Amino acid sequence: MSEYRRDPVVNRWAIIRNADQWTPDQYEKEDNSPKDEISPFIYGREHMTPPEVAAFRPSDSEPNKKGWTIRVISNKFPALKIEGDLNLKSNGIFDFSNGVGAHEVLIETPDPIKQMADYSIDEIKLILKMYQQRSIDLARDERFKYITIFKNFGASAGTSLQHAHSQIIALPMIPRLLQEKFDGSESYFREFGRSIYEDILKQEYEDRERIISENDDFVLFCPFVPKYSFECCIMPKRITSNFNELSDSERENLSHILKESLTRLKSCLGNPSYNYYLQTQPTIKHNEASFCWHIEIVPKLNSYPEIEWDTGFHYVRTSPENAARYLREA
Amino acid sequence: MSEYRRDPVVNRWAIIRNADQWTPDQYEKEDNSPKDEISPFIYGREHMTPPEVAAFRPSDSEPNKKGWTIRVISNKFPALKIEGDLNLKSNGIFDFSNGVGAHEVLIETPDPIKQMADYSIDEIKLILKMYQQRSIDLARDERFKYITIFKNFGASAGTSLQHAHSQIIALPMIPRLLQEKFDGSESYFREFGRSIYEDILKQEYEDRERIISENDDFVLFCPFVPKYSFECCIMPKRITSNFNELSDSERENLSHILKESLTRLKSCLGNPSYNYYLQTQPTIKHNEASFCWHIEIVPKLNSYPEIEWDTGFHYVRTSPENAARYLREA
Repeated sequence: MSEYRRDPVVNRWAIIRNADQWTPDQYEKEDNSPKDEISPFIYGREHMTPPEVAAFRPSDSEPNKKGWTIRVISNKFPALKIEGDLNLKSNGIFDFSNGVGAHEVLIETPDPIKQMADYSIDEIKLILKMYQQRSIDLARDERFKYITIFKNFGASAGTSLQHAHSQIIALPMIPRLLQEKFDGSESYFREFGRSIYEDILKQEYEDRERIISENDDFVLFCPFVPKYSFECCIMPKRITSNFNELSDSERENLSHILKESLTRLKSCLGNPSYNYYLQTQPTIKHNEASFCWHIEIVPKLNSYPEIEWDTGFHYVRTSPENAARYLREA
Repeated sequence: MSEYRRDPVVNRWAIIRNADQWTPDQYEKEDNSPKDEISPFIYGREHMTPPEVAAFRPSDSEPNKKGWTIRVISNKFPALKIEGDLNLKSNGIFDFSNGVGAHEVLIETPDPIKQMADYSIDEIKLILKMYQQRSIDLARDERFKYITIFKNFGASAGTSLQHAHSQIIALPMIPRLLQEKFDGSESYFREFGRSIYEDILKQEYEDRERIISENDDFVLFCPFVPKYSFECCIMPKRITSNFNELSDSERENLSHILKESLTRLKSCLGNPSYNYYLQTQPTIKHNEASFCWHIEIVPKLNSYPEIEWDTGFHYVRTSPENAARYLREA
């Protein structure tokens, strides 16, 4: 039948199916093969996008011209506006404010059809380096409390453009689900004097069955209480709160495990749409010993019964133990 | 550009676009017209479903035979099992338990192609009456803390069967997002001595621009901080915590406004998929003066940019003020 499981960080219960679980072939396949589309992000079209805020490009090349390897631009249709101060107002019981923030697009490659699972390690390393660089730069702006970095791949995951890109958003408030992680891990730290993520990793190593793979610096596993089937997590073995402090060798190892995770998902589930979210500490005062940054990778599988429980109860058709087994074998 | 808005009950911020907002025709249409499908729920197939736990049927008709108007059965593929006690265990840092609960399917009509927006008022009244009846019955079981009732319509909203049905689930714990509503309204009550929903309704009447329609007992509006575009809320004018206490005349008026809301969504957005969730008090001890039951109706519109913010920040492309205007005119 199924079992209830409690997420130890945010105290959320989910229902995990433990009989008649779905196998990878029971999820509806989506065609995410490259299409013949006109990309606004290719060489020679740089003048058609908003000007670049950062790029990796040869030192003798000019900004907003071709030759770049990675290019970060303001979103052409931004959700937020970079200018101005946060101006909180209220209308009776309702609080609101102007939409101050940064909304950037990181173009990961000049190639309009290449997909991240097929990048070289060097290509992924540069993307991670740019994540750090933009994140450090935006965190200097005192108006911003949180820098969120995520990637959408495939139509079901919300991609509007095939040309591979990530998004970087700087917000004057901490997103709710992250605040819950910070609160949960802070409260655990107060009680036990260590990071809850240390104990979660210890348990994952003891149980073993949810671990997919590891290298010197990182472990890839399916969390005990996923929100969706085949959800994966990449966590540093050295518990550390701030992604921005990633060293060169850690970046190398993160590139390997990130490529591996996407390759395994692709092979196991037939190139599914996915989102990944980098979850790091806020830019403001924070107990660095309580939290540990990590990457959540969530494939978007079209399976009707998993969306019925959105009022806060997730119903997961494939247990993380089985998902990890399929992904290890992929 | 856009503005941040704070939900006063659960303290959640969202980004609401307030320039270049999407009009109803910018959302991708889904074909939810009735298909020629074989339904397991039609007259004569009663023996092929799990036995009925309740039904409205002529007094001279036999259970699990044809003649019924509404029929409630156990889900053939239940997420939860009705037998046994909740048996909490732990594995180191992880808590889990067996999946005790009820998972019922309410077959709304013997007609395999009829859709709720097209029901008569009498048909909707009977469905609401059965919601109450099952909810009261399940709440008598002391193992259950929350009875959740919802309906999925259309493939994007998670329907696996076209034949119109609702779902009823009894849980031994309170779903997270509801607990947050209870906590938020309880804390407001402690501070101000009245229900926050009273003040929200007062503000909605003052602002007027988000109200779609009303009758003697209910008001239909687009909430100030929706999670998704064109989200609607039906709230009783008499602040009351327990849906199960709905009177006959209130049930009549609720039927009218529920039908109206679904008809307006259908006409405005081209018969979109939707979910609705009945949000009522838990079955356990609860401050009845703080909360107000309501129905959240969420159309599932295929619009890529609204799912990018799932870490707790919703980005809404059509403001509730505009959504309400389109729905009023529909």
